[in-house]
Amino acid sequence: MNYRMLIQYDGTRYNGWQRQATTAQTIQGKIEEVLSRMLDTPVEIQGAGRTDSGVHALGQVANVQLKTEKSSEDIRTYLNLYLPEDIGVAAVEIASDRFHSRLNAAGKTYCYRLATNPALHVLERKYMQSWETPLNLPAMKQAAALLIGEHDFQSFCQVKMKKSSIRRLDKIEIRSLPGELRITYEGSGFLNHMARILTGTLLEVGSGDRNPESMPEILAARSRQKAGAAAPAKGLTLMEVHYS
Amino acid sequence: MNYRMLIQYDGTRYNGWQRQATTAQTIQGKIEEVLSRMLDTPVEIQGAGRTDSGVHALGQVANVQLKTEKSSEDIRTYLNLYLPEDIGVAAVEIASDRFHSRLNAAGKTYCYRLATNPALHVLERKYMQSWETPLNLPAMKQAAALLIGEHDFQSFCQVKMKKSSIRRLDKIEIRSLPGELRITYEGSGFLNHMARILTGTLLEVGSGDRNPESMPEILAARSRQKAGAAAPAKGLTLMEVHYS
Repeated sequence: MNYRMLIQYDGTRYNGWQRQATTAQTIQGKIEEVLSRMLDTPVEIQGAGRTDSGVHALGQVANVQLKTEKSSEDIRTYLNLYLPEDIGVAAVEIASDRFHSRLNAAGKTYCYRLATNPALHVLERKYMQSWETPLNLPAMKQAAALLIGEHDFQSFCQVKMKKSSIRRLDKIEIRSLPGELRITYEGSGFLNHMARILTGTLLEVGSGDRNPESMPEILAARSRQKAGAAAPAKGLTLMEVHYS
Repeated sequence: MNYRMLIQYDGTRYNGWQRQATTAQTIQGKIEEVLSRMLDTPVEIQGAGRTDSGVHALGQVANVQLKTEKSSEDIRTYLNLYLPEDIGVAAVEIASDRFHSRLNAAGKTYCYRLATNPALHVLERKYMQSWETPLNLPAMKQAAALLIGEHDFQSFCQVKMKKSSIRRLDKIEIRSLPGELRITYEGSGFLNHMARILTGTLLEVGSGDRNPESMPEILAARSRQKAGAAAPAKGLTLMEVHYS
């Protein structure tokens, strides 16, 4: 049976989502370890997004093929009993056999949170990046608008893509909240470090270090060197994976 | 000059608000330590509410008399620079000489958060108490209604009060949210452990271990033994201090 899971995690202690041979400290690794123990057989899960080291998730989705008599609710209960408290499986449900969390994903929403007054966000300090210098929001919004649409985002990708680096960015919303600046990205898919490099580039625009009108040029260059530094992982959270 | 401060903290690591001779791990102690260092003279601050060990605050208020040439903003900046990251001073402003954070407080709002699906609140896990068994909400609301008003709350107080234990409870709101039950208390003042004992008693009602109609009896008894167990500190947050 194919099961679909909705997963949350505080990424602080982990080397990202994806299982690695060299460390047990990955989200995928932890979940597979518990499922493998439950069924006494090796289990492999498929995550929708391979979040970086230190990135959080409120709405990660994964699927897994399991041979078990257990109900979805029993599987969920077992997982939450044995997973560390910074990983939670909010829901487990039976999916169609053909459902694949990554290949079927129509899009994703990521959120980058900047604490402009960190003392107003003490309880959320692990999920926000401090940013106490003024930002030119109109310039940032102007730059953001130029990034919307289907583009080759190779300049905003940490690794050289062998496959296509063309993605569609549907929305970049820049919102001022009390003591916070929140940047929400919605798009068809995100390349390696893409949400963090977009954020870093927009912050350089907001700081006056980069012209908002230079975005098309950065995109056209298809070169990581042209874009800004990647913003720190701790401010980024995978909010939702969209399926049609 | 008399300064008024708005303070947030994650109470997890602390032995509560109030300074103690035996430990440096109190919120008041940490803030006084930084202010004393700033002015090179002992400083004493007055907090509006003496939150227990492990209780959090989003809206604690304190006042302090300081002789300094520094601006309010400079004081705030200095405090946040030297305070640990789980304590934040969101605002510092000049108050009237007669302002006293505790004596002038007209009321307070506390919030108790229960995670009915903890896997939906992984990022907030330090500020919520897990509660995964079903609760009878109508019974809890019926009991809550009987606690509203001006009463002698000695039964809901951990210590025997020498002064009056009469307080006014203006509101107990019990709200179901996704994966969460949130109980909000508004009142003139809260006795030692009062918000936690109210919560524990309501949870016993919700679990069927206690009759909602027994509330007047518990109040009348003026005896700690008659009320329920105190709910764990980690679920409680001081949200706001009200001034008229």
